[in-house]
Amino acid sequence: MAQLVIAGSLALDTVKTPFGQATEALGGAATYSSFAASFFAKPSIVGVVGIDFPRQSLQLLQQRGIDTEGVEISSNGKTFRWEGYYEYDMNEAKTVKTELGVFADFKPKLPESYKDAEYVFLANIDPQLQLQVLEQVKKPRLTLLDTMNYWIQNKKQQLLNVIKKVDILLLNDSEARQLFGTPSLVKAAGAALKLGPKYVIIKKGEHGALLFSDGSHFSAPSYPLEAIKDPTGCGDSFAGALIGYMASKNSDSEKDLRKGIIYGSVIASFNAEDFSLERMKRLSAEEIEKRYKEFERIREF
Amino acid sequence: MAQLVIAGSLALDTVKTPFGQATEALGGAATYSSFAASFFAKPSIVGVVGIDFPRQSLQLLQQRGIDTEGVEISSNGKTFRWEGYYEYDMNEAKTVKTELGVFADFKPKLPESYKDAEYVFLANIDPQLQLQVLEQVKKPRLTLLDTMNYWIQNKKQQLLNVIKKVDILLLNDSEARQLFGTPSLVKAAGAALKLGPKYVIIKKGEHGALLFSDGSHFSAPSYPLEAIKDPTGCGDSFAGALIGYMASKNSDSEKDLRKGIIYGSVIASFNAEDFSLERMKRLSAEEIEKRYKEFERIREF
Repeated sequence: MAQLVIAGSLALDTVKTPFGQATEALGGAATYSSFAASFFAKPSIVGVVGIDFPRQSLQLLQQRGIDTEGVEISSNGKTFRWEGYYEYDMNEAKTVKTELGVFADFKPKLPESYKDAEYVFLANIDPQLQLQVLEQVKKPRLTLLDTMNYWIQNKKQQLLNVIKKVDILLLNDSEARQLFGTPSLVKAAGAALKLGPKYVIIKKGEHGALLFSDGSHFSAPSYPLEAIKDPTGCGDSFAGALIGYMASKNSDSEKDLRKGIIYGSVIASFNAEDFSLERMKRLSAEEIEKRYKEFERIREF
Repeated sequence: MAQLVIAGSLALDTVKTPFGQATEALGGAATYSSFAASFFAKPSIVGVVGIDFPRQSLQLLQQRGIDTEGVEISSNGKTFRWEGYYEYDMNEAKTVKTELGVFADFKPKLPESYKDAEYVFLANIDPQLQLQVLEQVKKPRLTLLDTMNYWIQNKKQQLLNVIKKVDILLLNDSEARQLFGTPSLVKAAGAALKLGPKYVIIKKGEHGALLFSDGSHFSAPSYPLEAIKDPTGCGDSFAGALIGYMASKNSDSEKDLRKGIIYGSVIASFNAEDFSLERMKRLSAEEIEKRYKEFERIREF
């Protein structure tokens, strides 16, 4: 199993959906994605929290085999907080409030043991921080980049700079349209590939995901979830499981990437079934394999 | 090959898209769907046109082996006309004008030879007309029903009455949400199945299509079309190819239905590449099989 480093936010989320709510619950892109990756690999995370971050949340990650040496505990502010809600169409999160806290002045410093990582996931944070993390990894084999509409609007040039340096760009459909200024996902993917990445993955929520590379295309089916409680962290869980699977296979092939996208879809579909990390906390390897097999059946013709 | 009857509109369409326009071009649900079905079977169509309907358009259908005995040529008004346009997001047609013409007083009368049909496609027309057609077919084996938002809004009860009598209900995603009052396609499909149909197919445009039956689910991949010129008639072509394939196989099995959905997606993807029926007119069996194989590759993991 190859070494995997994940950089991103650790957060306290306050979320309301038509099916309930959670207050200051464990969240953040690095949290969701490293937990998802831990079903396949032993990720190491980079991020920052305030001293108000619950000790047991870090322990929860450590118990999953996640290396948290790269998580700085700063006395210089509060943990990153996000407050948002979903309406009946749960495809889109509405943000009420974002408090960057300790992330405002964060200067990521990778522990020495992280710098030989072969697999790197730059989860959704400021693209300048993503670049700083990437530059500290000596010789990554496969790098995956996620982002969000906020950075497309406010730090587009910095984002484009990082995109040029990674192997796989991950976007949701509206972000792809926004970043490349076209309603066509095929054209957006083509434009993204021209920037440098070898692969582009477009997440379409309930409609599945698409993988584009030069001359090839993969369409991952959607999973018919009847009981979505909270979609927060689904994109992060998808990405974490995907990169965790690639690290576990020590692979960068498209064949494995397609399987990784299905494992990502599997973990994300479970994640939506409960608030915060609750569903992943009680998720078993047997459940994962069973749903993977369901994904095989639902695309068969 | 089993007998197939298709009822629906024959129309003259005036369409504008970001990539061009067509004026009074051949269109209509029965036209598109029977032409698509003719790649697999020999459909017979039921509908009405005015004396202004171009003679060569009927000949075009006849040359494809389509039986047009059931097309009434009425001197009591003009051919059905639709005028609409698409903006850059080509998922949704905007209607400028609909002129029912001869369809306003249409009383479908099936030729005797149609009444033994085993396969019936009730393409998008007034649900009362759909019911009148269905009641004239003695012992259909597999019946497919399409509709549109207009009938959901204006003739919901009549529509529900027909839905109860068919085997397969076909809807696009927004129609499914509208008819069953839920944002969840899974819940909408469940509600539809409770009304009577054995299968529900939800078309999602560029996101592919879903098939639901009691206890089973199929997710058809989308095809990455870079050059969409005009999506008019794609839903009709999808349905026509699907039911044509089922008739050619003399089957009502889910296994064949899944293949039929892929053939439907293949024909619809070609249809979008040009205005009116232009692309289908120059479509070959080899091209269809080649794209079918591409659909196999894009869902492989």
